[in-house]
Amino acid sequence: MTPVNHYSYKKLQDFCSSIFVHAGVEKEQADIVAASLVQADLRGVDSHGVVRTAIYLKRVENNMINPAAKIRTEKENESTALIDGANHFGAVVGTKALKLAMKKAKANGIAMVGVKHSNHFGTGAYYALEGVKEDLVTIVMSNASQTMPPTGGLRPFIGTNPLAVGIPCGEYQPFLLDMATSVVARGKIIVAAQKGKSIPPGWAIDKHGKATTNAEEALQGSVLPLAGPKGYGISMFIDILSGVLTGAGFGKYVHNMYENWEDPQNVGHFFITIDINKFIDIQTFKKRMDLYIQAIKSEPKAEDVEEILIPGEIETRISEQRKKNGITLPLKVEQELTEIGRKYGVPLEDALLRC
Amino acid sequence: MTPVNHYSYKKLQDFCSSIFVHAGVEKEQADIVAASLVQADLRGVDSHGVVRTAIYLKRVENNMINPAAKIRTEKENESTALIDGANHFGAVVGTKALKLAMKKAKANGIAMVGVKHSNHFGTGAYYALEGVKEDLVTIVMSNASQTMPPTGGLRPFIGTNPLAVGIPCGEYQPFLLDMATSVVARGKIIVAAQKGKSIPPGWAIDKHGKATTNAEEALQGSVLPLAGPKGYGISMFIDILSGVLTGAGFGKYVHNMYENWEDPQNVGHFFITIDINKFIDIQTFKKRMDLYIQAIKSEPKAEDVEEILIPGEIETRISEQRKKNGITLPLKVEQELTEIGRKYGVPLEDALLRC
Repeated sequence: MTPVNHYSYKKLQDFCSSIFVHAGVEKEQADIVAASLVQADLRGVDSHGVVRTAIYLKRVENNMINPAAKIRTEKENESTALIDGANHFGAVVGTKALKLAMKKAKANGIAMVGVKHSNHFGTGAYYALEGVKEDLVTIVMSNASQTMPPTGGLRPFIGTNPLAVGIPCGEYQPFLLDMATSVVARGKIIVAAQKGKSIPPGWAIDKHGKATTNAEEALQGSVLPLAGPKGYGISMFIDILSGVLTGAGFGKYVHNMYENWEDPQNVGHFFITIDINKFIDIQTFKKRMDLYIQAIKSEPKAEDVEEILIPGEIETRISEQRKKNGITLPLKVEQELTEIGRKYGVPLEDALLRC
Repeated sequence: MTPVNHYSYKKLQDFCSSIFVHAGVEKEQADIVAASLVQADLRGVDSHGVVRTAIYLKRVENNMINPAAKIRTEKENESTALIDGANHFGAVVGTKALKLAMKKAKANGIAMVGVKHSNHFGTGAYYALEGVKEDLVTIVMSNASQTMPPTGGLRPFIGTNPLAVGIPCGEYQPFLLDMATSVVARGKIIVAAQKGKSIPPGWAIDKHGKATTNAEEALQGSVLPLAGPKGYGISMFIDILSGVLTGAGFGKYVHNMYENWEDPQNVGHFFITIDINKFIDIQTFKKRMDLYIQAIKSEPKAEDVEEILIPGEIETRISEQRKKNGITLPLKVEQELTEIGRKYGVPLEDALLRC
């Protein structure tokens, strides 16, 4: 058995950034995209990590992302702005929008910046954590290409449009919710199908729109919104604010990153930032957050439960471990990145953790 | 069998308002509370309708709600404010907060008004629909007393903290999402228990924290947050913004309206309003909303599904029917209101619909 390689997150970030620079992205912007990907790997959200490097590059090479685009603030008010991402990288556009929202919230209490003509922007957690560093409640949402049917529908119409919320605490790590609006990641159905196992009721419908617990049939059908009509409503709300309001795509007009090679994705996002100090003294707030979390964690636990966790707590722990012990990558991803590195003269092995 | 009485929603509103006036509430404020209750009955959300008149009154009579309180704006910025509800009726405090948020959003693009020291405020839909009339995206959240355990917990710690979102459309009725963060209303478990039926997996845990499909055991235990950890996270987020941020109660510090007769509820709410015009021309937005809804409604339907619905659509239809045909009340509620009416010299039968 081949020994598993462990990569330094800092060096892996440098590796990815170098790759993007070689593909025509400005250094500062390449650093942002690389940081957003590697942070996902650090936090254990491997699906949104450096595994995406190849598809991002492929979209640049096929003129589906324009790394030379001029991002433009199209409309601006005291507490709002609309940004035209001009088809730049989602993480670059998103970071610009977030920074503007942070500045405006500090001045006026709350701000919202909407974004159109963007691309896949990584995880919402990436932005939420940036906002938390500035003591802002940070709410991040984005639409995505079609994967879920509306309640009563048969085929995908809305995305698993994610919602992320970051809130600073005192002694405790930040509250960090980052969730898709589907009942479960499609990846879990794929795994069940591979193992020949059934899936729990409520996860998916078959191609006729009938509820199914057969993983194979589910893959022919669709994964469902969380909690039925409630998740459908939340996902639709996110699509409306991200897409209908900003002028970005919505529903079927948000294009699939992997499948559509004729149109830019036209993803929309929005960022809402709230200055805690405008409501309550920040130190008092942090003490109240600690009290809240302490109270939850002290609750009696259900049988076989070791600990009551706070949203984001698992990811923070994984992140601490991986910062220390390195990030491991699936063999397929390693091979892909090695090949890309060779093409640009940037060796992946330079990113290995040296103990 | 006794014939079922049909009440005129307008007259029922007058009846409730008169009752509250007799109990010491100013006319204008009594009208607000009555309107919020009757609107819930109109929209088919009977659990939040005039059935609550008796408990609201009882709390006034027991000095648990103060209808003479002076609601005060404690902090104010360009786009935010913090209101001290001073233990007035939730609907009165909420309406004041919403109006301030609407004014600020129109000036600056987005606004958020937080509320502390409030009471049960009716349905979130009531406020969301007011905001929609002014062409504002309106987001309303409130915390509530303890009913759900955290994921991994054994007993109630957080409320089924509701989330409501109203968004105006063009030809179509407004998008109106109004949902609790529980997987299901506790009432449905009570009904199942009464019928001796089992409940679907995922709805509840028993008193040991074990998943159960036995309705009786579920009533001894707790109803669960929607979609497990996701609903727990959303509910916690709502509690943090409604309670921790505003200075209201949170978790166990939000008191139960029916059970606690020593402390005011100290509920917290918040209202976020967004001026659509600051992002996109309102008429263009409404056309895009119509296009979106039309596209969803034209999707192929699952077997046995007659129509794909938009959040709020069922309630709008019920509301139209009930405006025309009147509101019917459960016998128990009718008896209760008749008795209250007698006490204050306001006959309930005056609210009957005359055909």
